[in-house]
Amino acid sequence: MTDDDIRPVTWHDGAVRIIDQTALPSQLTYLDLKTVDELIDAIQCLAVRGAPTLGVAGAYGVALALLNGEPDRIPALRAARPTAVNLAACVDRVAPLIDQGFEAVLAEAHAILAENLAGNRTLSTAGADWLLNTVGSHRPLRLLTHCNAGPLATAGWGTALGVVRELHARGLVELVYADETRPLLQGSRLTAWELARLDIPHLIQADSAAASTIVSGHVDAAIVGADRIAANGDTANKIGTLGVALACAHARIPFLVAAPTSTVDLHTPTGTDIHVELRAEAEVLGTASPHGSRAHNPAFDVTPAPLVSALTTERGIARIATGELPGTLW
Amino acid sequence: MTDDDIRPVTWHDGAVRIIDQTALPSQLTYLDLKTVDELIDAIQCLAVRGAPTLGVAGAYGVALALLNGEPDRIPALRAARPTAVNLAACVDRVAPLIDQGFEAVLAEAHAILAENLAGNRTLSTAGADWLLNTVGSHRPLRLLTHCNAGPLATAGWGTALGVVRELHARGLVELVYADETRPLLQGSRLTAWELARLDIPHLIQADSAAASTIVSGHVDAAIVGADRIAANGDTANKIGTLGVALACAHARIPFLVAAPTSTVDLHTPTGTDIHVELRAEAEVLGTASPHGSRAHNPAFDVTPAPLVSALTTERGIARIATGELPGTLW
Repeated sequence: MTDDDIRPVTWHDGAVRIIDQTALPSQLTYLDLKTVDELIDAIQCLAVRGAPTLGVAGAYGVALALLNGEPDRIPALRAARPTAVNLAACVDRVAPLIDQGFEAVLAEAHAILAENLAGNRTLSTAGADWLLNTVGSHRPLRLLTHCNAGPLATAGWGTALGVVRELHARGLVELVYADETRPLLQGSRLTAWELARLDIPHLIQADSAAASTIVSGHVDAAIVGADRIAANGDTANKIGTLGVALACAHARIPFLVAAPTSTVDLHTPTGTDIHVELRAEAEVLGTASPHGSRAHNPAFDVTPAPLVSALTTERGIARIATGELPGTLW
Repeated sequence: MTDDDIRPVTWHDGAVRIIDQTALPSQLTYLDLKTVDELIDAIQCLAVRGAPTLGVAGAYGVALALLNGEPDRIPALRAARPTAVNLAACVDRVAPLIDQGFEAVLAEAHAILAENLAGNRTLSTAGADWLLNTVGSHRPLRLLTHCNAGPLATAGWGTALGVVRELHARGLVELVYADETRPLLQGSRLTAWELARLDIPHLIQADSAAASTIVSGHVDAAIVGADRIAANGDTANKIGTLGVALACAHARIPFLVAAPTSTVDLHTPTGTDIHVELRAEAEVLGTASPHGSRAHNPAFDVTPAPLVSALTTERGIARIATGELPGTLW
């Protein structure tokens, strides 16, 4: 195993062990959460974050509740972050096993973690193969990513960053441009920390530099994760992703989305049906803005399907831009 | 006069009076600079900034040198910021008058300021007319701007923000989205302050939100300034401008550049000949990045001519995207 490097959530000696993501990048701190309420607090203060990570944390949280004799706290855990569908989904997945006891729930939580890791490895291999075939070159690639879709946001391997890791393992990464991802800086705080720890060469840049870096020929392909993919292939991801996709289209380079099939939401027909969360204005305004100024702070944007060259999943590739949506995925 | 509101550089009672732009937006402070070296310091610490503003400051600085009997400091003033062509150009413009004495130099400096103000007013009127005709609607417009091309960057009216002011004077501005403009935040610090002071409704947003705001139909047109325009119409401006232009092209809305004709550089054939300044990595890295991470920090990007719907200047409009470059401008 070389992928056990970064594990944002594990079960350790009767506790849910997490990496405290609020302490990154300055220090790597593990917290052993011994009660469900400690776990809820960690979720709500974003010490543990990322949709797949939250799913694993939710499943282990149910095991913790049984171990401690506090099953009454499970509903509060399930609702700790209502927008993260994985949290509730994974709590619901282990719930039928509660009657069988702690060991049965813990085993299912371990299975969820293992499935996520294996799925990420599969989609990373498929994405790397597709990218190399599409770029048509086996020289080391110059890549760009936006936000954080790495081990910290998943069970421990990553989606977009998983593809980067797979290419790096093959000696085929020259450089990764990591957008800083304002306003919460997931790129400079988390993705850059992961890249540094994995010894992958990288440069942090302002989000506004992405278009220029791509259009001026410094990038062979962009790779991002996804929060929700509509039935027609329109893809919601962190605000700024659309700008990356537009620049890739202008430069005629691949724009690859990496996400598990659970991200595809067939109940959402198109991107216009995706509700985009508006977050607190203070995240943008900070201390540099005039007193009384207001802000527009959408957390996500929607990239239209024709701009998504391909989606790599644990079940293979969908060439969304050309309308090739395999029945095995869709 | 309603335009005497914001004057970044004036002559006042034997001193060069500037607005200290490093104190904005929290306070509006005027500094009376009484020696050439005080002025040089103010230029170098960015208390006074913006290419046209620096030109005016340079001309008044020569007058100050004569008043104080310190003409030996003029070469140092001229070179205080070597990349700002206007500073050296305006020092050179008043230099032939030095032999005629202080009053002659001061009169020419006043003329430079007045010409810049008048030119900005003319290009603003032309830009507003063009925009309204192009959008084909006389309802109040929703506009987007990037970086700072307002009164603080000019003699006191503005280029891109001058067009916005002209539209606002006609009652035709519904809302301005101001990109914060990382890493130095000229948008949230300076443009938002100007808009607030001018009572123009505005929202600050992360640079990464611009593409989504435009593509999702919240914006009727984008207006930006320019640092240098190549002979073929390729336009260099603050990093992030290209992303705004790509989104406007995708959304099929006007992307208008507002700049004096002195910005057009016929000695630079195309955008690839424009040298893009790489600034200090620390501007991007801040405190949020991992120790040891590196950054890519280009200060400008180049928008290809086909993406520039039009350029408004004090001599009229050039429809750059369609190749209409009038001989009076080019």
